[in-house]
Amino acid sequence: MTMTKKITAPPQTSNILSPLPASGGDEAIEALLKAEGVRVVRIVSHGQASPAGFWYDQDEAEWVLVMRGRARLTIEGEAQERELGPGDSLFLPAHCRHRVAWTQADEPTVWLAIFFDARLAPKPVGA
Amino acid sequence: MTMTKKITAPPQTSNILSPLPASGGDEAIEALLKAEGVRVVRIVSHGQASPAGFWYDQDEAEWVLVMRGRARLTIEGEAQERELGPGDSLFLPAHCRHRVAWTQADEPTVWLAIFFDARLAPKPVGA
Repeated sequence: MTMTKKITAPPQTSNILSPLPASGGDEAIEALLKAEGVRVVRIVSHGQASPAGFWYDQDEAEWVLVMRGRARLTIEGEAQERELGPGDSLFLPAHCRHRVAWTQADEPTVWLAIFFDARLAPKPVGA
Repeated sequence: MTMTKKITAPPQTSNILSPLPASGGDEAIEALLKAEGVRVVRIVSHGQASPAGFWYDQDEAEWVLVMRGRARLTIEGEAQERELGPGDSLFLPAHCRHRVAWTQADEPTVWLAIFFDARLAPKPVGA
């Protein structure tokens, strides 16, 4: 009889800032980790913005963190765009309509995003 | 009759790198977001390391990312310590015994950690 040994060895370390995809084309979206109801994703922008009139309206909630670069987000109903730079994070509830108004063109903007199924009821602490 | 309006307004933006707790004392651990089976946590180290002979042996899996600073982790059974700097991330399966061998003393090391209940079966992509 063979035993199924629990795998506890961690995979290799990787770096979210390197290597980065080349600029040009679309935003580069790469899943880093998946769990039931959760996805951890890296997004790399090189000056991309949402098309005029386009709004993200997601079934999932999203927590997003800027690792490097700069961006501006528009939240529907807010008069002021949100300026985001390194370390800035924002929780976007499911169906909170938003768009990327601008990302820096001359260097990449690297985002870490965590998407949550609404049934996991994600909530920022202290908000 | 009043309708319960779905809350879709996002809270204020916050920054994971600022403000930071003062050095001295223990590592500073702060929950940023909670969901069912998931916690997103900021950890700030100022030279702390795990006590000699101490191993973390967690029921939860952990994905950890260094935002700034430097650290070395020891994974049980690995001859070489893992050196981690900005952008480095590592997935630690539940019950993967590990310890913090060293963190930089002269400036803070800021970690983003995501803890997952094992029942969510988190898995790094491509590992």
